[in-house]
Amino acid sequence: MKKPKTFKTVLVPGFKFSGISAGIKKSGLKDLALIFSEDMAIIRGVFTKNKIKAAPVKLDIARIRQSGKGRAVIINSGNANACTGRQGSKDASDMTVITAGALGITPGHVYVSSTGLIGKPLPMNMIRKAIPDAVKKLSSRGINNAASAIMTTDTFPKVFSKKIKIKGKTGTIAGIAKGAGMINPDMATMLSFLCTDIAIAPNALESALKQAVKKSFNRLIIDNDMSTNDSVLIMANSRLKNIPIKKSSLLYKKFEDALSEITSNLAKMIAKDGEGATRLIEVVVRGAKNESDAEKAARAIANSMLVKTAVYGRSPNWGRIMAAIGYSGVNVKEDKISVYVNGCKLAGKGIGTGKGSKSLFLKKEIVILADLGIGKKEAKILTCDLTEEYVRINADYVT
Amino acid sequence: MKKPKTFKTVLVPGFKFSGISAGIKKSGLKDLALIFSEDMAIIRGVFTKNKIKAAPVKLDIARIRQSGKGRAVIINSGNANACTGRQGSKDASDMTVITAGALGITPGHVYVSSTGLIGKPLPMNMIRKAIPDAVKKLSSRGINNAASAIMTTDTFPKVFSKKIKIKGKTGTIAGIAKGAGMINPDMATMLSFLCTDIAIAPNALESALKQAVKKSFNRLIIDNDMSTNDSVLIMANSRLKNIPIKKSSLLYKKFEDALSEITSNLAKMIAKDGEGATRLIEVVVRGAKNESDAEKAARAIANSMLVKTAVYGRSPNWGRIMAAIGYSGVNVKEDKISVYVNGCKLAGKGIGTGKGSKSLFLKKEIVILADLGIGKKEAKILTCDLTEEYVRINADYVT
Repeated sequence: MKKPKTFKTVLVPGFKFSGISAGIKKSGLKDLALIFSEDMAIIRGVFTKNKIKAAPVKLDIARIRQSGKGRAVIINSGNANACTGRQGSKDASDMTVITAGALGITPGHVYVSSTGLIGKPLPMNMIRKAIPDAVKKLSSRGINNAASAIMTTDTFPKVFSKKIKIKGKTGTIAGIAKGAGMINPDMATMLSFLCTDIAIAPNALESALKQAVKKSFNRLIIDNDMSTNDSVLIMANSRLKNIPIKKSSLLYKKFEDALSEITSNLAKMIAKDGEGATRLIEVVVRGAKNESDAEKAARAIANSMLVKTAVYGRSPNWGRIMAAIGYSGVNVKEDKISVYVNGCKLAGKGIGTGKGSKSLFLKKEIVILADLGIGKKEAKILTCDLTEEYVRINADYVT
Repeated sequence: MKKPKTFKTVLVPGFKFSGISAGIKKSGLKDLALIFSEDMAIIRGVFTKNKIKAAPVKLDIARIRQSGKGRAVIINSGNANACTGRQGSKDASDMTVITAGALGITPGHVYVSSTGLIGKPLPMNMIRKAIPDAVKKLSSRGINNAASAIMTTDTFPKVFSKKIKIKGKTGTIAGIAKGAGMINPDMATMLSFLCTDIAIAPNALESALKQAVKKSFNRLIIDNDMSTNDSVLIMANSRLKNIPIKKSSLLYKKFEDALSEITSNLAKMIAKDGEGATRLIEVVVRGAKNESDAEKAARAIANSMLVKTAVYGRSPNWGRIMAAIGYSGVNVKEDKISVYVNGCKLAGKGIGTGKGSKSLFLKKEIVILADLGIGKKEAKILTCDLTEEYVRINADYVT
């Protein structure tokens, strides 16, 4: 779904951003992003559950465990630095050393992310040469450049921000993300970088991040492949000089809600921009006995290649939705299930109503609602349709 | 993969077959098959694990539980008779009553299968009118017609048979199958009907069928969707008049092996004929700690849309194979893994060898071999590549 967007520039006090072309992408598009905090920031992260983790993921996990503090994140697209062995670990570490050198800070305060093709060594010569330039281009108005530089097959940069009042002061939380493919059930985190000037206790920051990711990036499916590089990092630099928010304070909920709103919006942008997608699909399962059942059924529907191709074909093929519910592993009663697409009831009590037509799919956003009719719990999963273009992109993807 | 085949006609003593057009498919192609045993046969089955089962599946399960004996199976394609409520159950039952009437046998000895679109009532007028014609056309040489009449998006009929010696006599086992889409992990059984003139004890027949299905149809993935209609039925009519094979007899292994060979070959035909497929893919995972780990990893690779599109793109993208192994849930060591495609080592000790090119994909059959390097067990899963044509077929599929 081509959806080029123009953003007004988001400013986050104390943060600078840049995004440049280092030549990693053959296309010459931006491929190196830098996020810099003028003050020492608390940094927390959520990472892929894939047993095979890219070198930068391992490095970030170790640094968060060691100090949990940082000043910068250097990110390249075009190469995932995954399955690259010892050389990969050295390259990830070198990226932080070079960045630290150019910024005049210690390497231990630099984090790193990579995204792109798996299994090829990073072109370190290019990166080494480009990092000083990325530092030179740092600007408080540079967030859109950074958002562009982390894109792979994304068709538009993804930025979302929110301001919240903290005892009379106005704090900002902002995030960028990239998605497009290899985005899959459970820990569908892709890359996202969040930053805020709000002071918050480390454990509160970690808890808010986990909650926000759980209900947004982790409820997002493009295909059924889990990346080796999925990472979400958040930096909080306390520039607002508020009394740090504790988990027990009333402000914590406000912070968590704002963060969730940002990650949810970024997740929605990722689903809209799924490789080859023409429709955003929101799968809602309600009437389940518990939330886990609702999520399981919603995931099965959102993962179904047949449901996704039906949406692409603008076909109200509710039978495929029923079949997916049936194999989701949830204990359902066929004759209790209703299925709706964009408000039109296609099936009730497990059988067709005779309603439904292509016109249900005119809107760019499709809501598939399945009511299991046996409880009161619900869950939501975001996905997109499956098109020939997805196949084309992934058959040809080599850079 | 268009692969029209010509078969020499398979004869199974005491069995007759027909396949005709009842008008259910708008194309006018054959859509009603009948298998008839002149003698009472033992009948056993393996069925979809989908919680939402089509009406004919429920009926067959009940009849096998009741008597486990039968004389005929009536099968229609073009309509799955799934999610059709009480009317669907009545229609399935009526199909057996009409067939029994035309054959002069009791309805309880007739089994039924349906495949095609979910959620539309069967066109019973057409079926009612056509069944006597299907009976009239029954012929001992009719197996290819029956194999054609059970096809949906299949591009060629699937028949395989084998003769085995039973104490100086020659017995026959033959099977037909249909596949193409909605074929998915675990109980990917689609429709398959097997028959034999060999006398075998009911529990031995059941055990041999389960074993054969486990290593063939259940190791087959086209997409990740499990049908509401998957059924494998076997009929043994004892026409050979051998002493019935018992589970404890030496001949049992011979029977089971022959049956496995048939179901494996039918499974391979189904994978070759996966919707839109251009390549058959055999995923082999070896060097696993146990068979279940090997199977899990092989399933993850075979299920990966990115691996499947890479094969379609003739791209030796071993990183996607590594990523799939990593998210399979199996405890692996990245630096122990080797990946081969058609014998060419693309990665060793977890990193690329620099080898591999498009020419690896010239053959129609692709073997992806991953050696986990941490044990001695292995497993195999069959699948096919993912193409634009798969998307087109399933975006347009309405009949």
